[in-house]
Amino acid sequence: MKIVVLKFGGTSVGTIDKIKKVAKIIREYKKKKFKIIVVSSAMSGVTNSLIKKSNYISENFSDSEYDVLVSSGEQVACSLIAARLIHMGIRSRSWLSWQIPITTIGPHKNSKIDQINKIKITKYLKEGGIPVVAGFQGINYNERVSTIGRGGSDATAIMLARFFKAERCIIYTDVEGVYTTDPNKLNKAKKIKVISYEEMLEMSSLGAKVMQPVSIQDARLNRINIEVKSSFVNKPGTLITKKSNIGYNKIITGISSTQNDSKVTLVGVKDKPGVAASIFKPLSENSINVDMVVQNISANGKETDLTFTVKTEDLNKTKKIIKNNRIINFRKILFEKEVSKISIIGVGMVTTPGVTFRMFQALANKKINIQVISTSEIKISVLVDKKNVNKALTALHREFKLDK
Amino acid sequence: MKIVVLKFGGTSVGTIDKIKKVAKIIREYKKKKFKIIVVSSAMSGVTNSLIKKSNYISENFSDSEYDVLVSSGEQVACSLIAARLIHMGIRSRSWLSWQIPITTIGPHKNSKIDQINKIKITKYLKEGGIPVVAGFQGINYNERVSTIGRGGSDATAIMLARFFKAERCIIYTDVEGVYTTDPNKLNKAKKIKVISYEEMLEMSSLGAKVMQPVSIQDARLNRINIEVKSSFVNKPGTLITKKSNIGYNKIITGISSTQNDSKVTLVGVKDKPGVAASIFKPLSENSINVDMVVQNISANGKETDLTFTVKTEDLNKTKKIIKNNRIINFRKILFEKEVSKISIIGVGMVTTPGVTFRMFQALANKKINIQVISTSEIKISVLVDKKNVNKALTALHREFKLDK
Repeated sequence: MKIVVLKFGGTSVGTIDKIKKVAKIIREYKKKKFKIIVVSSAMSGVTNSLIKKSNYISENFSDSEYDVLVSSGEQVACSLIAARLIHMGIRSRSWLSWQIPITTIGPHKNSKIDQINKIKITKYLKEGGIPVVAGFQGINYNERVSTIGRGGSDATAIMLARFFKAERCIIYTDVEGVYTTDPNKLNKAKKIKVISYEEMLEMSSLGAKVMQPVSIQDARLNRINIEVKSSFVNKPGTLITKKSNIGYNKIITGISSTQNDSKVTLVGVKDKPGVAASIFKPLSENSINVDMVVQNISANGKETDLTFTVKTEDLNKTKKIIKNNRIINFRKILFEKEVSKISIIGVGMVTTPGVTFRMFQALANKKINIQVISTSEIKISVLVDKKNVNKALTALHREFKLDK
Repeated sequence: MKIVVLKFGGTSVGTIDKIKKVAKIIREYKKKKFKIIVVSSAMSGVTNSLIKKSNYISENFSDSEYDVLVSSGEQVACSLIAARLIHMGIRSRSWLSWQIPITTIGPHKNSKIDQINKIKITKYLKEGGIPVVAGFQGINYNERVSTIGRGGSDATAIMLARFFKAERCIIYTDVEGVYTTDPNKLNKAKKIKVISYEEMLEMSSLGAKVMQPVSIQDARLNRINIEVKSSFVNKPGTLITKKSNIGYNKIITGISSTQNDSKVTLVGVKDKPGVAASIFKPLSENSINVDMVVQNISANGKETDLTFTVKTEDLNKTKKIIKNNRIINFRKILFEKEVSKISIIGVGMVTTPGVTFRMFQALANKKINIQVISTSEIKISVLVDKKNVNKALTALHREFKLDK
């Protein structure tokens, strides 16, 4: 069977008219002789409204009942999609987790799909039916309703694609795909036709909000081809696949930038083993996510300067924690609120020398000062003043020929 | 185990504040050392809003998906109640039909509870937990979600009371109980403390909208004591039980009146076998509910007059069907829109002579003309002009000492 998994996000099923459109999209795949498994999120707004109710019931709402509560949202969307397909003369039905079943492990609100029983769905597909599966949920081994914490319905779609060996998993959403950089910041941004899992992971964790990193990682581990596309316009989206499927003709695939970052520098930190750990342990214990960390070798062998970034909303908490920490010795602490991390991402840079130089030169030509640098295999990140973000994006986008 | 089933209707769980109140009511029963099974309807308005969605999807929305759709409403209410109990330190959890399971037979949208598996709930009750069961739904033997057509969540509560041999099934709703007559029409109406199933059946089918007849019938067949009371005021409600539990001191238990009835009279119908059937068959085929039917013996042995009532909204359809029916021979057809059926109901009348006379006399004293009369074991119904309804209710209420 040539199977395709179609996943529709909350905005794609946000109104009855949009659900009708979704049904038409599904019909197109049926005409192409695909066996189709549909996965749906809840209609946009529904989950939030249910969570609001839960907050009014208790500030400490039971996790297991939370899962029963919010999973009702996908149930509604699935029945509406299936009924619309039936209305169009197409054989379809909704499938809830317990009916398949989709079994999960892990705690409530943050479960992970463990097994998908293929028997009933396979039979239904062979009979020519289109199953519409409620995303984001499962049942655990105690037969309680569970929900999948991170990744949500995307994770359901990717696991279905894995268990049913689907040719492709198509994620329908409200954007047309993944762009070379944020189109809201640079109107020359271009839709990327194909991108590797690894690049996508860097893109997504850096702010391209198309898919959650955990779902991309799942797809990467199971070698599932994902296409991200819009349910509103009929255009090809972005294919996320393994590197070897991609004929690279560009060194850089995309450029990302962050918002709301703040820089913290500890000047004159005593340079001895364990000092970095003693700084970051209390931050991590307070759920403060530290991003870029740069420490130079100490010039005099005794002291060093340590710089890192945190989200601006965590800055005050970070200041307090560091100042109250008696273990850390340093001469001075510096903060800067208005910074942004600009990253160029591309599998191509591994085999191309001089990428770093070209990035720095392009920024220097525009008189943009680089505050901090950090590199990985397929990514180079620099910290710049926030006011320079658009100028930097424009320069880099041109330098690496992403405009074309 | 001393078990009580508490059922909360849609208005009783209509807001978060009302759900909090419901949780307090449940706690009171727990203090009284009852084992409690809770059944909840959907929050008021939710089911209608889901049905509205289904209508926008298709005028011919799939029955099986309808059940998946609307059953989500009770799921939400149950999780909120259970979570509120947990918040109050009480062990509780929601139970969906597939988890128990509650199995149904019959078509979608109109299923009937066949079996309730007691194993898991019994274990949970013994452990001290309060199960909150989603009303109105079940799963059928194909493992599809089903909903219970008539009776809804009341039927779930009564079947749970039956399977678990509950001492009492308490139906919490937005009225304080069953009244001697509609309090909106007669402010002297009194709450009835105790009423037999049979009387309640007559009361409910005649317009006392407290419970659906099918649920009362279920309770009667299984000898389940039902108490109908308000979740908003802490007062005893009305107990519905078997006749032998009731020490009758009143001949008449209640008086009901209908609205929107119309009277149809066929004058000079050929008096031969099968004539009534030939009139009512096409009406029934068109889903027109015929209520009072009165036919006198024919004076001349050839012709008779036949009178019956239908809902006013069905009157035009009724006219058309009768006029187009070539099989029926009659001389004249008469219609009257503004009529109402007044019924006095009471098990006591069986053993008390003269009740009919007293009713007719009381109406005659007020110069109220009786158009049609129909009687049963525990009920006498008369058709009067609609403008006389309040006058009739007042007179009869006093005559049978229901004011006291």
